[in-house]
Amino acid sequence: MLAVINCRQLITLAGPARPRVGAEMRELSIISDGAMLVLNERIEKVGTRKQVEPFIGAKCTVVDAGGRILLPGFVDAHTHPVFAGTRANEFEERAGGASYQEIAARGGGIKSTVRSTQAATLDELVQAGRRYAEWFLRSGTTTVEAKSGYGLSVEDEIKLLRAIKRLGQETPLRYVPTFLGAHDIPFEYLNRQDEYVSLLVDEMLPRVAQEKLAEYCDVFCEAKAFSIDESRAILSAARSHGLELRIHADQLSLSGGAKLAADLNTVTADHLEHADAVGIAALKSAGVQPVLLPGSVYALGSNRYPPAREMIETGLAVVLATDFNPGSSPTPSMPMVLSLASTHMKMTPAESITAATINAACSLARVEALGSLEPRKVADFVIHDCDDYRELAYFFGIEHAWKVYASGCLAFSRS
Amino acid sequence: MLAVINCRQLITLAGPARPRVGAEMRELSIISDGAMLVLNERIEKVGTRKQVEPFIGAKCTVVDAGGRILLPGFVDAHTHPVFAGTRANEFEERAGGASYQEIAARGGGIKSTVRSTQAATLDELVQAGRRYAEWFLRSGTTTVEAKSGYGLSVEDEIKLLRAIKRLGQETPLRYVPTFLGAHDIPFEYLNRQDEYVSLLVDEMLPRVAQEKLAEYCDVFCEAKAFSIDESRAILSAARSHGLELRIHADQLSLSGGAKLAADLNTVTADHLEHADAVGIAALKSAGVQPVLLPGSVYALGSNRYPPAREMIETGLAVVLATDFNPGSSPTPSMPMVLSLASTHMKMTPAESITAATINAACSLARVEALGSLEPRKVADFVIHDCDDYRELAYFFGIEHAWKVYASGCLAFSRS
Repeated sequence: MLAVINCRQLITLAGPARPRVGAEMRELSIISDGAMLVLNERIEKVGTRKQVEPFIGAKCTVVDAGGRILLPGFVDAHTHPVFAGTRANEFEERAGGASYQEIAARGGGIKSTVRSTQAATLDELVQAGRRYAEWFLRSGTTTVEAKSGYGLSVEDEIKLLRAIKRLGQETPLRYVPTFLGAHDIPFEYLNRQDEYVSLLVDEMLPRVAQEKLAEYCDVFCEAKAFSIDESRAILSAARSHGLELRIHADQLSLSGGAKLAADLNTVTADHLEHADAVGIAALKSAGVQPVLLPGSVYALGSNRYPPAREMIETGLAVVLATDFNPGSSPTPSMPMVLSLASTHMKMTPAESITAATINAACSLARVEALGSLEPRKVADFVIHDCDDYRELAYFFGIEHAWKVYASGCLAFSRS
Repeated sequence: MLAVINCRQLITLAGPARPRVGAEMRELSIISDGAMLVLNERIEKVGTRKQVEPFIGAKCTVVDAGGRILLPGFVDAHTHPVFAGTRANEFEERAGGASYQEIAARGGGIKSTVRSTQAATLDELVQAGRRYAEWFLRSGTTTVEAKSGYGLSVEDEIKLLRAIKRLGQETPLRYVPTFLGAHDIPFEYLNRQDEYVSLLVDEMLPRVAQEKLAEYCDVFCEAKAFSIDESRAILSAARSHGLELRIHADQLSLSGGAKLAADLNTVTADHLEHADAVGIAALKSAGVQPVLLPGSVYALGSNRYPPAREMIETGLAVVLATDFNPGSSPTPSMPMVLSLASTHMKMTPAESITAATINAACSLARVEALGSLEPRKVADFVIHDCDDYRELAYFFGIEHAWKVYASGCLAFSRS
C-alpha cells in the first residue's frame, strides 16, 4: 500500500463519470491538505489528511508531497508519437523564411518523415519512441492517444501500430492506439488517390482490425488530403470493422469536417481552427467532443486559435491535447498546452485542466478508469512542484512534475 | 582538471570579442565530435576529440557527453528574478477575460507584487529567489542580469539589491545587478510623480552607488510610467554615479524610448515591440544593442513581436532574453525564448543562440569572460540532451539541459 500525504491542493476532478461542460469545467473538486491511499494499481481512498491518516498502516510506503500539488496524470488525446528522424532542419528553413508549402513541394514535410519511418525497423521506431515516452512522463502525462500515419503502406502502418503496442508494454506510459493510414497521400499514389482509398478500405483496415492493433480510426479531412466523401468512406469502413472514429477537421480551411463528424457521430473532431458556428452547433447536437490543439497553431507561427470560448459556452465538452508530432507541433508538454489555452484562447487554468484530464479520458472511453482521482480508478497521478494548480499554466517553458506514478508505480522522479 | 568528450556538436561561438551582427549571427563555429578541457574555473582547450585527447591526464575527471551537444551557458540579459508572491490568481482572471488594465486599476499588477515584496524580509526574498535560480540553471542559463524594481522605496530597493547579491554568493547562478527603482510610480506618490523622481535621483541612486549594489541603471520609459524627460533625468543622474544604462523602450507604445536610448548612448534598449524604422536607425548609429523579449509578448496574449528581422538586416547586435517576471513573462526558459524567436520572429535557431549567448554577454560587458567556449573564458557550459542545436528551439515546452556547469563546477544534473 502507498500513501501520499501533505498535498497543499489535491485536485481530484471527482464527479459524474461523463464529460464536464459549461461551468462544470471550472470545478476541480480540490481538497486542501489532501492525502491519498493506493492499493496495488488502484486508488483506495482520497480525502483530507485527517480522513486518510487513520488508514495508513505500518507497512504502507508514505510519500510526503511536501506541500506540493497532486493531480491526475494528464490524458493527451491526440498525439503522433512514433516516427523516425526529426524535422529540425526544416524548422530552421521555415524560421529563415521558407513556407510549409514550399518545403512540402520539394519533398519535405510529412513526406520526409514518411520516408525515414518506412526505412526504419520496428526496433528503431520503438527506440525513437522511448525518448518521447520519457518526455511525456516528465511533463506529467500518463496516457496518450497514439496515431500511426507515417507508414502509408500496409506493412509500414502495421509496423507503426506494433511499435505503439510495444511502447505500451515496455514503458510506463499508457498508449491508446489509433489507425491513421489516411494521414497523407503517399507519393507513389499521386493522381491515383482513389486507389489509395481502396487500399485503406480493402487491405489496411481489415488487417488492423484482425490484428486488434487499433481502437480508433482517424482521417486527415482537408482539401490537400482527404475529401469529405473520401473521409466518409474510410470512416464508415472503419466503423464496420468495429473501430471508433476520430477526425482531423477544419484545421487549415473550413472544409466541412465538423459537419461530417456530426453526421457520422464520431467520438471527437480535432483541430477546428476554422470551424464556424454551424459546425459548432452540429458538434453540440451530435455530442461530438472537440479536441483543440493550440501547440500546432503556435508552432506554425499562426495566431488563428480555435474558438474555445464559443465552444464552452455552447456546451461542448472541450478536450485539450498536444498534437505532438515532428512537423507542426513538436511539444509533448501538456503544461505548455495549458499555457497556450490560457494566454491565447481565454480558457481559465481550471477549464484547461478539466480539458486535459477527465474530458480527455471520456474522449478515449476511459472515464471509468482514468482522468480523476477517485476510489477504484487507476492510480495514475502526478505530484507537481507548484504551490497552486494555476501555476501549471502560468509559469511556462519549464517542467513542473516532481514525481509521476502510473498504475501506482513510480514512473518518473526529479532528482 | 575536467574533460568533456563525445560532443556530437560543440557549439563554440568562437570569434572576435565583440557583438556579432548580420550574417555573423548565423555562424556558431561548431566542432563535430568535440571535446573540451577545463582547468579550475577556466576553459583550457577546445577542439575535436583527436586534438584534445592527448592532453587528458590520468587525474582528469572525464565527462562523457554521450553524443549530446555542448553550448556556452545562456546569458539572460533581462530578468526580474527577485520578488515575493506570484500573480497566478491574476493570471486566472486575465484568462477569464479581465484586462491587464482592469486588474491594475483595482490595485493588482506590479503594485500587488510591490506590496508583497515590501512586506517580505531579505531572507524571505532570497528564499523565493532560490526557486527561480534553480529554474534558470535547469533551463541552461548560467548568468542573469537581475533588476530590482519591486521595492520602490529607498530601503526596499536596497533590500532587493542585497537579495540579488546574496543569491549570487549562495547559488551557482551568476547575477549582474541592475537598479530599476524607476519601474513604476509607487501608490503613495500618485500625482506627486516629480517627488518620486527626486527620491530616485537624490536618495536612491547615491545609496545604490555608494554601496556598489548595481552595475546598471534601468528605467521603464512609457506613457503610464516615466516620460522621456523623466527617464533622461534619471539615467543621466545614474551615469554621473558611474552606472551604465539600460532602458525599457517602446514596449506598449511608440513613446520615443529608442531615440532616447540613442541620444544617451545606453548599452541596451529593451522590448521595442513598437519601435519604428527611425528608432531602429538611431539605435544603429549609436551602437545600442536591442534586447528582445518575446516571452512577454506571448504571455500578454499579444501577437505584436518586435521587428527582429529588420533589426538584424540593419546590422543591430540583437540580444534575446526572457524578461522573467511574475506579471508579463513568467518563464525562466531561454529555450522557450529561442522557440518564440524562431516561430514568431523569423530568427533562425543559429541567430537566436548567438543572441542568447555572445551578444548577450557583450551587452553585460562580459564578453572577455562569457558567451562562448574559448580558451581562457570562464567554464560556464551546458550539455543539452539533443542531437542537434536546432532541437533547442524546435522541441518546445521541455527542459533540454542534461548537465550544467558554472565556473567549472556542476550546478545541475538530470538524474
